[in-house]
Amino acid sequence: MATTILKGTVISAPSLGKLDITEGGYLVAVDGVIQGVYKTLPREFASCPVEDMGNDLILQSFSDMHLHAPQYPMLGMGMDMPLIDWLHTYTFPTEARFRDTDFARETYRRLAAELVANGTTRVCMFSSLHREATLILMEELEKAGVTGFVGKVNMDRNGGVDLEETTEESIRETERWLEECHFEHIRPVITPRFTPSCTNELMEKLGQIAGEKDLPIQSHLSENAGEIAWVSQLHPDCRQYWETYAKCGMWNERTVMAHCVWSDERERKAIKDAGVWVVHCADSNQNLISGFAPVRKMLKEGIKVVLGSDIAGGDKISMFDVTAASIRSSKARRIMDNWNTDFLTVSEAWYLATSAASDFFGEKPGFAPGNPLHAIVLRDDDIISVRKLTAAERFERCVYNRQKNAIRAVYSAGRKVYSAQ
Amino acid sequence: MATTILKGTVISAPSLGKLDITEGGYLVAVDGVIQGVYKTLPREFASCPVEDMGNDLILQSFSDMHLHAPQYPMLGMGMDMPLIDWLHTYTFPTEARFRDTDFARETYRRLAAELVANGTTRVCMFSSLHREATLILMEELEKAGVTGFVGKVNMDRNGGVDLEETTEESIRETERWLEECHFEHIRPVITPRFTPSCTNELMEKLGQIAGEKDLPIQSHLSENAGEIAWVSQLHPDCRQYWETYAKCGMWNERTVMAHCVWSDERERKAIKDAGVWVVHCADSNQNLISGFAPVRKMLKEGIKVVLGSDIAGGDKISMFDVTAASIRSSKARRIMDNWNTDFLTVSEAWYLATSAASDFFGEKPGFAPGNPLHAIVLRDDDIISVRKLTAAERFERCVYNRQKNAIRAVYSAGRKVYSAQ
Repeated sequence: MATTILKGTVISAPSLGKLDITEGGYLVAVDGVIQGVYKTLPREFASCPVEDMGNDLILQSFSDMHLHAPQYPMLGMGMDMPLIDWLHTYTFPTEARFRDTDFARETYRRLAAELVANGTTRVCMFSSLHREATLILMEELEKAGVTGFVGKVNMDRNGGVDLEETTEESIRETERWLEECHFEHIRPVITPRFTPSCTNELMEKLGQIAGEKDLPIQSHLSENAGEIAWVSQLHPDCRQYWETYAKCGMWNERTVMAHCVWSDERERKAIKDAGVWVVHCADSNQNLISGFAPVRKMLKEGIKVVLGSDIAGGDKISMFDVTAASIRSSKARRIMDNWNTDFLTVSEAWYLATSAASDFFGEKPGFAPGNPLHAIVLRDDDIISVRKLTAAERFERCVYNRQKNAIRAVYSAGRKVYSAQ
Repeated sequence: MATTILKGTVISAPSLGKLDITEGGYLVAVDGVIQGVYKTLPREFASCPVEDMGNDLILQSFSDMHLHAPQYPMLGMGMDMPLIDWLHTYTFPTEARFRDTDFARETYRRLAAELVANGTTRVCMFSSLHREATLILMEELEKAGVTGFVGKVNMDRNGGVDLEETTEESIRETERWLEECHFEHIRPVITPRFTPSCTNELMEKLGQIAGEKDLPIQSHLSENAGEIAWVSQLHPDCRQYWETYAKCGMWNERTVMAHCVWSDERERKAIKDAGVWVVHCADSNQNLISGFAPVRKMLKEGIKVVLGSDIAGGDKISMFDVTAASIRSSKARRIMDNWNTDFLTVSEAWYLATSAASDFFGEKPGFAPGNPLHAIVLRDDDIISVRKLTAAERFERCVYNRQKNAIRAVYSAGRKVYSAQ
């Protein structure tokens, strides 16, 4: 039995807005599984080696619940364009490059390393439509120590010449991809790009595959007014966007929908009733001028909200930055709502970036016993302060302000996957 | 005569939204003064050594036109509070610490180094009310290579026990500070904190000093609804906030006003007519839920808008980040205005962060001949791309996405003040 004991200022988010803080605490894992956080080391671990992190913060690592791996090479580009133009000018041509497996290998190796170095150890991620590149992505994530879900994208319409499959191809390649997925920590998720990219026939078949193989589903929902109008034109039989997924068996408690910026009361009720996950992508929604998602309202209604970097609509891989962006977005929403909605506090946004997704991964919120060890060790001793800060203040500050090489180590599924030089 | 010749992809912003791009260009300065940007090196410089930056971008360095030096040690803290609470809980106690000159020296040495390392070589900056700490700040900026203006803050009311001067003290210390300012590149600016912090008597005297000594003036204006209401209560004789400054002789073409989030048509007209500078502080306004300044409207009306990090209301020192934040803020404003106002493009925001302030410093926009050499050398060869990018695309990307140690060198007033290790 391999025991890992990390000593430091242990902070986790057991529920929305709550922090568990143990200064000089011990975070103990056996065979990669968390046993508990202790103020005093239990006698049974007395003979085990302790990694003493001194005054460093020991935090939960992040879950990035929406990002597009093949858009990594266009991070920060095309930001002056609205969604649909941006897709056709930058995104689709970039994704089309991933038929080249060497380019895919190099790009995904770098992306995986950057995710881990930034403390993102769980993802729900889009690949491109290419089966081979998707397997390469999964392999590189697994090697680097990123866990979670990756989807080969399906798109049999409106992708242009270079980024479209026939319906048959899309289904055949999906089935073949699913057969070839043999990874320990990276699992497949069914991924129709979004309704305008998939015919009804394809959607229905994907819904069927997801049902038969008990797979989660991810896609996009109600990001942008133009997109919603397009969907409505394509599906006159559906009253709302979400119904285009629901009618194909893709609307359940393992469905992950990015954005939901414009989901009105009726759509939100459908989300809530089905237990669908909403991924809030604050920077992306602001960059592409999509709007400000009513996150606070969704939380109040009991909708499961998590966060996504949405690279490359978002421009920040670091989930520290994504956390700050979601706070800022909630403040923008407050301004728009004439100060009638609350903003997200730092600890609330942090919860959304970490614990909120735990159930999706079969875990419990926070550093709960039984969870696999996913953690970040963060140093902040090189930031000047006017006085000794409380642990809560240090925690709050790190969301906005971190020193160079602040992340000292990252643990994923019990394994140390990153160590600062 | 010392000649500096930098060779690379030279990019500058000669006017709002326009870029001058010279690939493989030569940026030439003699005795620290720019001679020009050339596609072919003029014969007269043929024998001078050329610093060949290869494919690196050679960009204008930044002007940060509003930031609070003594708030540097609280960067990223108290972000869950509204403006006035935040001032009293975090800001004023932090600033009060700067009566300790050792603490001031250490803090300001680090701040100056961080500014330069991030390519900020011109500032218009608030110190605290402490004369000695202000002189230390000016000295440390000068040593590090930051140029521009610094103001000893004046506040003779509403500062609490630890951060208030008597009116006499405030005037006396200001006069003494002005006598003791002997720096080459850092000059004094008269700095009433904001109307609620200064009695009429103090304001009038400061206006008089500014007039007599021909000094610029900086303060805050119409940041937040609560603040505006407070000002109106304090000055029933003034119809609008700006008039509290104007009536004391502090409203002219060398007046710099931070925020102006809530400046209505009448106040904007007063700003325009007097030639007052508006400093837009996007992240700060969103962090403190102040609102979204109508930047596009102000630009259209011919108001001089520049950018500020406003640390520590803002949480980012890097003006690359501040540029991105101002774009995002303009997009938020577009959303709020029901898509009826344009957002700032990358090159427009870049102009605001660099050239827009040039007149305030007695320079011309861009790398104009006669300007002192202020430049950043930026490397982006370690970011993966799907194809060879144009110089304009690389430029756009660097606002959002930069590699580790992207800034290779920084030049300020002709001197190389930073070099990456």
